[in-house]
Amino acid sequence: MRTLNVALGERAYPIHIGPGLLGRPDLVVGALATPRAAIVSNEVVAPLYLEKLAAPLRAAGVRITAIVLPDGESHKNWETLNRIFDVLLAERCDRGTTVIALGGGVVGDLAGFAAASYQRGVPFIQVPTTLLALVDSSVGGKTGINHPRGKNMVGAFWQPKLVLADTDTLATLPARELSAGLAEVIKYGLIRDLPFLAWLEENMTRLMARDAEALAYAIERSCANKAEVVAADERETAKDGGRALLNLGHTFGHAIETGLGYGEWLHGEAVAAGTVMAAELSRRLGWLSEADVARVRELLARAGLPVSGPKLGAERYLDFMGHDKKVVAGRLRLVLLRQIGAAITYADAPPDDVRAAIESCCA
Amino acid sequence: MRTLNVALGERAYPIHIGPGLLGRPDLVVGALATPRAAIVSNEVVAPLYLEKLAAPLRAAGVRITAIVLPDGESHKNWETLNRIFDVLLAERCDRGTTVIALGGGVVGDLAGFAAASYQRGVPFIQVPTTLLALVDSSVGGKTGINHPRGKNMVGAFWQPKLVLADTDTLATLPARELSAGLAEVIKYGLIRDLPFLAWLEENMTRLMARDAEALAYAIERSCANKAEVVAADERETAKDGGRALLNLGHTFGHAIETGLGYGEWLHGEAVAAGTVMAAELSRRLGWLSEADVARVRELLARAGLPVSGPKLGAERYLDFMGHDKKVVAGRLRLVLLRQIGAAITYADAPPDDVRAAIESCCA
Repeated sequence: MRTLNVALGERAYPIHIGPGLLGRPDLVVGALATPRAAIVSNEVVAPLYLEKLAAPLRAAGVRITAIVLPDGESHKNWETLNRIFDVLLAERCDRGTTVIALGGGVVGDLAGFAAASYQRGVPFIQVPTTLLALVDSSVGGKTGINHPRGKNMVGAFWQPKLVLADTDTLATLPARELSAGLAEVIKYGLIRDLPFLAWLEENMTRLMARDAEALAYAIERSCANKAEVVAADERETAKDGGRALLNLGHTFGHAIETGLGYGEWLHGEAVAAGTVMAAELSRRLGWLSEADVARVRELLARAGLPVSGPKLGAERYLDFMGHDKKVVAGRLRLVLLRQIGAAITYADAPPDDVRAAIESCCA
Repeated sequence: MRTLNVALGERAYPIHIGPGLLGRPDLVVGALATPRAAIVSNEVVAPLYLEKLAAPLRAAGVRITAIVLPDGESHKNWETLNRIFDVLLAERCDRGTTVIALGGGVVGDLAGFAAASYQRGVPFIQVPTTLLALVDSSVGGKTGINHPRGKNMVGAFWQPKLVLADTDTLATLPARELSAGLAEVIKYGLIRDLPFLAWLEENMTRLMARDAEALAYAIERSCANKAEVVAADERETAKDGGRALLNLGHTFGHAIETGLGYGEWLHGEAVAAGTVMAAELSRRLGWLSEADVARVRELLARAGLPVSGPKLGAERYLDFMGHDKKVVAGRLRLVLLRQIGAAITYADAPPDDVRAAIESCCA
C-alpha cells in the first residue's frame, strides 16, 4: 500500500492505493465520526464489492446502511440523488453518519453531493472502483449532478475524509471503462508531466494488458499530479491555469456528452475526443506541430479511445460549450496546449479557429 | 445606516441595517464579482420591491436577471430550486454571477442553496424583506430546502458576501409575519441576552405598533447576537452550546411544521409554540419556575404568537423530532433553558418528561 496526502490544511486527507484495501476496515474506522455509515453503490458494483467492504466494517462494529442506485451517467440527476436522501432519512441517519461512495465517477459524484447537502453536510469517504474514479474523480472534492442543459451544473466542492483505492477492483472493469480511465491518465502527462507521458507511450501495451505493476504506477502518479494541482487551487479560482488545467478536453467533451445525451459516450471517451480537438486548436494557434497532434491522437488511440467526435455540427458544440462552467464573464475559456506537457487556459481563441478545430475532428 | 460585521475570517461580511437601502446600489456593486446578478424573489415581494432594487443596479451597469418564485414554505422544495437553475442556465449565468435573495426566509433559503450549488458555488447576497429574515435567516449562511420527511434536510452552509437590511420593507409586512419574526427576536433574549429580554418586555407594544426606532433597535441587537454566535461556531459543530443554541424551540417547532404540512404555520409561529414546550420541559427538569414559564408565554402572546401547539399527539411529535438534525448518534439533543437568559443543549431529558411537556402545551 502507498499513501499520498492531499494537502488542504484542515481539510487534508490521505489517498491509500494498493491491492486488498476493501478488506482493511482499520483504514476506514479511524476516519468515521461515529460508528455509522451509508454505503452508496450501483447495481453493477454492489454485487461484486459491497459485502467485501461492508462485512469487515460491520465486524468492526460499524452500523451500515446500503443504498444501491441504477448504473450510468444518465442517472446522475436529481431523482437519483433524492433516492439517497430518502434512504438516509428513512434510516434516520444523523449528522455523524459517514457517506461512503463505492463505485465509479457517477456514484462518487452523486454520493459526494448527497454528503455535501444532507443536513447541510456529513462526512464522506471515496472508495473508487473504476480507473477513472481511481485516478481522477475520487480525488479533489468535486461532486454534483447533471442538468438537462449542462453537465455537472449543480453540485458542491466537498472533500472526502479519505480515498481508499483498491487496485484489485480493476480486475472486473470492462475494457471500455479501462480505456475511459486512461484518457484522464494521459491527460496528466499532456498538461504537466512530460516524463510521465513518455512513460505512458512506452508502457501503454502493458496498461492495456492490465499489468498490475504498470497500473499501480500509473494510478499513483496520476493521483500525485491531481493532489498537487488540487492542493494549490482547491476551488478552481486561480485566474490562470491552476485546477482548470485538469479540464483539458473537457469543455469539448461536455458538449459531446450533453449533445448526445448523458451515458451514450463514457466521460473518458468524450474527454479523449475533446483532447484531440484541443490539440488541433492549439496547432491552429501555432503552438503545436502536426507531429505533436499526431502524437496525442496516437497515444489515445492505443488506449482504445475515440480520437474524433460525433458530427453534431460545430454550432451545436459551441452552444453546449457556452453553458460550460469554464465560461467567465461571457467568454469561453478553453484549456489548450502551449506545448506537449504544458497546458494553459486561454479565452482569446478566434471563434473561426474553434469551429474549424471541431469540424476537422468530427467523423 | 448601521453596519455590523460577521467575523468569519476570509468569509467575513457586513450587515447594513437602515431605511432606504434598496436604493443604495453603491453598497451592492462593490460586493459583486462581475457586473451580473440574478435577483430571486417571490410573487408577493417582487411587485413591491424588485424594481426598487433592480433599477438602480441596472443604472449602475449591472446586468440583472429576475427570477420570481411562488410564495410560501410549501414551495421550499426541489421543484422550486430547479426553477432557479433552469433560469440561470437559460440566461447563461456563469460563475461570476451573484445570486441576490430578495424576500423572506423561504426565498433566502432557496436562493442561498441555489447559489451554493449552481456550478458548485457562486457569490450570494441577502436582501431580507421580512422581520424573520432581517433578524435571523439572512445572517449566518444556513441555506436549504425541505424534504417530505423533514425540514431543511437538504442544504448547505453558504455565507453571503453582504446582507442589505432595508427596514423600510417592514411597512408592507403582514401582521402575522411581523409576529413570526418577533419569535426569533425574543429567542435571542431568552438564550443569551437577559437585558434585551427586559427591553423587549418594556417595548413590545411599540414593536407591535411598528415604531421605527424600536424595530431598528430590535433588529440591530438581534443581528449582533446572531453574528456573535455564528462567528464562534460557523457550522454548528461545537460539542456543547454554540450555534445550536439558536435552535431554541426549533426542534419542537419543526415537528409542528412537518406534521401539519409545510406552510400551515409560519416558521416563527411554530418556533413560538416550540419555545413554550422547551420552557415547560426545562421547568420539569427543575431549571425554570412556573413564573418563568408564564413569563415566556406572556411575552410571546403579547407578540401575537401562538403559545400552544396543535394536537398531533406526543408520539407524532417525537417521530418528527427524531428526524431533526439535532439528533446525534441516535440521541435527541434539545435546546433548553437552564435559566431565563441562558440556554444549553441537553441530550438526557427523560422521554416521559418530553412527552408530558408536549402534551401540556397542546390545545
